[in-house]
Amino acid sequence: MQGVLEVPLKNLEFNRSITRRGVDMAEIACLPISSGWYGTLVEENRRLIKVQCYSKKGTVNFYMKPIEGLTVLVDMDRKEVISISDNGLNIPMAKGIDTDYRYSVQKLNGELRLFNPISLEQPEGPSFKIDGNLVKWANWEFHLKPDPRAGIIISQAKVRDPETSELRNVIYKGFTSELFVPYMDPTDGWYFKTYMDAGEYGFGLQAMPLDPLNDCPRNAHYMDGVFASADGTPYVQSNMICVFESYAGDIAWRHSECPITDLKVTEVRPKVTLVVRMAAAVANYDYIVDWEFQTDGLIRAKVGLSGILMVKGTTYDNMNQVPNQEYLYGTLLSENIIGVIHDHYITYYLDMDIDGSDNSFVKVNIKKQETSEGESPRKSYLKAVRNVAKTEKDAQIKLSLYDPSEFHVINPSKKTRLGNPAGYKLVPGATAASLLDHEDPPQKRAAFTNNQIWVTPYNKSEQWAGGLLVYQSQGDDTLEVWSNRDRPIENKDIVLWYTIGFHHIPCQEDYPIMPTVSSSFDLKPVNFFERNPILRVPPNFKEDLPVCKARDST
Amino acid sequence: MQGVLEVPLKNLEFNRSITRRGVDMAEIACLPISSGWYGTLVEENRRLIKVQCYSKKGTVNFYMKPIEGLTVLVDMDRKEVISISDNGLNIPMAKGIDTDYRYSVQKLNGELRLFNPISLEQPEGPSFKIDGNLVKWANWEFHLKPDPRAGIIISQAKVRDPETSELRNVIYKGFTSELFVPYMDPTDGWYFKTYMDAGEYGFGLQAMPLDPLNDCPRNAHYMDGVFASADGTPYVQSNMICVFESYAGDIAWRHSECPITDLKVTEVRPKVTLVVRMAAAVANYDYIVDWEFQTDGLIRAKVGLSGILMVKGTTYDNMNQVPNQEYLYGTLLSENIIGVIHDHYITYYLDMDIDGSDNSFVKVNIKKQETSEGESPRKSYLKAVRNVAKTEKDAQIKLSLYDPSEFHVINPSKKTRLGNPAGYKLVPGATAASLLDHEDPPQKRAAFTNNQIWVTPYNKSEQWAGGLLVYQSQGDDTLEVWSNRDRPIENKDIVLWYTIGFHHIPCQEDYPIMPTVSSSFDLKPVNFFERNPILRVPPNFKEDLPVCKARDST
Repeated sequence: MQGVLEVPLKNLEFNRSITRRGVDMAEIACLPISSGWYGTLVEENRRLIKVQCYSKKGTVNFYMKPIEGLTVLVDMDRKEVISISDNGLNIPMAKGIDTDYRYSVQKLNGELRLFNPISLEQPEGPSFKIDGNLVKWANWEFHLKPDPRAGIIISQAKVRDPETSELRNVIYKGFTSELFVPYMDPTDGWYFKTYMDAGEYGFGLQAMPLDPLNDCPRNAHYMDGVFASADGTPYVQSNMICVFESYAGDIAWRHSECPITDLKVTEVRPKVTLVVRMAAAVANYDYIVDWEFQTDGLIRAKVGLSGILMVKGTTYDNMNQVPNQEYLYGTLLSENIIGVIHDHYITYYLDMDIDGSDNSFVKVNIKKQETSEGESPRKSYLKAVRNVAKTEKDAQIKLSLYDPSEFHVINPSKKTRLGNPAGYKLVPGATAASLLDHEDPPQKRAAFTNNQIWVTPYNKSEQWAGGLLVYQSQGDDTLEVWSNRDRPIENKDIVLWYTIGFHHIPCQEDYPIMPTVSSSFDLKPVNFFERNPILRVPPNFKEDLPVCKARDST
Repeated sequence: MQGVLEVPLKNLEFNRSITRRGVDMAEIACLPISSGWYGTLVEENRRLIKVQCYSKKGTVNFYMKPIEGLTVLVDMDRKEVISISDNGLNIPMAKGIDTDYRYSVQKLNGELRLFNPISLEQPEGPSFKIDGNLVKWANWEFHLKPDPRAGIIISQAKVRDPETSELRNVIYKGFTSELFVPYMDPTDGWYFKTYMDAGEYGFGLQAMPLDPLNDCPRNAHYMDGVFASADGTPYVQSNMICVFESYAGDIAWRHSECPITDLKVTEVRPKVTLVVRMAAAVANYDYIVDWEFQTDGLIRAKVGLSGILMVKGTTYDNMNQVPNQEYLYGTLLSENIIGVIHDHYITYYLDMDIDGSDNSFVKVNIKKQETSEGESPRKSYLKAVRNVAKTEKDAQIKLSLYDPSEFHVINPSKKTRLGNPAGYKLVPGATAASLLDHEDPPQKRAAFTNNQIWVTPYNKSEQWAGGLLVYQSQGDDTLEVWSNRDRPIENKDIVLWYTIGFHHIPCQEDYPIMPTVSSSFDLKPVNFFERNPILRVPPNFKEDLPVCKARDST
């Protein structure tokens, strides 16, 4: 992809168009944009890519200075320009004033100090051990692998049962399998922007070295990735992943007795977690991917979105010039700059192994039950109805507040002392559903976002939700295609899939760089332990906490 | 309420029933349970309460030893037993083994040390100032008031605009207006358990003193509540609220350039927030209520649930004895103990004042638009359609993934440089909807949970979502009743209402004390600032961080 960027530079028509816009060829920055697949003749038997450019004059934030309307279609194998679409000549180049987000620049223009330094400190050192790729922390053990496509792969995650001291299997393998980022502008220079970042660009390949005091707290440990470049040469992606203990001042569990019972009890335990993080900068956007392990057995998978918007040039510099806001396809963020509406979907592969490989997926449906005449002063209550999914179609789940369920992965052969099946539940967080037409080509290729939850039987060729070969894929090898085979999934080695979704209507606060927005989901023990597994952990005691000084006072 | 607990003790029938169960009268702990309202004769012109008891033999966690089936109906004014319902004689008392959660007990039985101490440290001290009830931190100023009914009241929250250095109004007044906690068991001893904790018990009155090293981090500041007891005597609820800066290792914004652009840029800013917290222990349950202020202008309201389940005695000690799990009304948690299914709703009153009191509520609906023939290779895209709510019924919102909207409160008279109206959006988190029959008496009294969002014009008598007088209320003074008047709300002083909901099917991990489960929603600036308001904040520098030692090494 990188090599392709030189192709337009040698093209006369391209050079002329750039110059006609008053842009110096030495000041352009171009991006290789995956072209998707739309079933046209030109796409047949060719590897295609589109190139669009920006001006980096006066700012490192060139994304805010698009050369709008100029799109070059390139044959990647032949390194040839196939066609140039050029229709934005009337659109003025945005000025890019105050778009540079580097601290060195702010320092000159007036920095904004809002708070005194604050730090996570562990006087006795971190509590985790990393031996190669094996991470041991508190009651957890798991393998951690940097992967060029997925980014972080967690495998063989096991938690120690405090009753028996045994390590018990929870996840065999978990990772971000695919992303889908469709932009909501059907016009010529934009309709194809429907990125599938893992399969098209490499989510791990884009995970740049972390900033050791800012991407992660000071107590973090770092892990490098070792990847192969396009010509096969190995290279080291240093500090690609960090691992750290986090304490935000939160509470793991608590109870106070109130005066009514005459018992003077206040018992509180602090919540300390282990976070595994990478930050993938897929060109403009930054995805902060966290796996957080809690001592109560919960695993939280979180995605934070930051970085820079993909914006569109426009002739407008004020909303009072806009006849119909719906046809902006976004929000006017600055003079001549529109933040185009888009979605983000991140689909997780979760090969759960609750106490062994053969598991079942149970929908615990929460259903209104009307009482019968004279049964109760109440007219209704909610009951839990358990439905074990027999085949894949039973586990194609669209979430709804009005037909809620819990989603359990259980081991039907492993029961607690009381006879409840040992399980973990998937707890969705705030999310969004893709609303695009199912027959729309991008949605067909990303049909893994048609449901929020899926369950498939393990199959080694079904790990990448959009198919193994995603670039210019046609949607014939997606999670939806596999799942529609409707194979048996009861008491099998099953894979759970969950998609975190965001609708993003940009706002001015996202300009010129976006404050992080996050969403997450949890994998939470449900009758996995006999009882609260952290009942016996101690609280914080004053004498265990560190003694600190400001650096310049030492 | 507290005085009522003595009433059954003098009753012979009650004494006999306790003794018949082999329980020593000296070892019982009783709870005053609000009786709801069901339209029966006995409820007319009486102030009623129900009393149920537990055995505290051998454990402080008496909640796990219910004296099942024994319910005493008491006249609160006359302090008289009206009737006793007694039908659980065949249910054995749970043994309560290992239910005591106090550290002092675990210490004897084998504590579980999972990690080394970790602490939030600020060598130069906290960055906030508290002057009486005025809190100033970073770019925020707000008033903070302990309230007997609501708990925490935030008022006159203002944020400083970095462009103009002016303080701008965001919230006039915000608080948890009411709770609704219906249990899902229609039988005699349980159907009435449908708590409205703020109006029936006092959410603030139940907020016990916080544990200074565990409820909040060591860098916290504490505030007392001064309340009136039933006889009018003032008293101090010490350390009822804490205020602290939090840093979990998270990222406020970031971007790395990838090698493709030849720019060597990695800019990351740490995310530090200010948290205001109380923990209300409404008998068994503990609600951790947080208001979190971010420097990017976002306010997060979060509720954590911990504490102890309300459980039911049963004859079962294993699931293999249970003929139909649906009629357990819950989960077998331990021998002879069922955790009964229930919901939690916490309804927030949010009198927004975006740059002044007159605001409008705008649904920005995200709608699928099909393209016309030949318009685009795409078949569909999503567009944003703005609908300004004219009257209250336009703002009765049921959330759905399949008809998503953003929910903006804007000041129509205040526009950004680019002509976008200044606003904040309500961003729902994971939540649950009440599914009870609307004509069910508890749901009628708690009709404020019939929608997730409402908007009303400000009215000083409409602050408590379940009505001013909630105890034995009949549902004629709820948010739903007010909203159905359908008053104009465009460009008025409006109040936004949002309900956080949880369905809780207990699991064994919740026994004998529950790991915290949380949900939240955000109030987020949307075209309120001209651009990212924290662009100019500095990153962490090593020389600003503290120098720490373990205490015993000093």
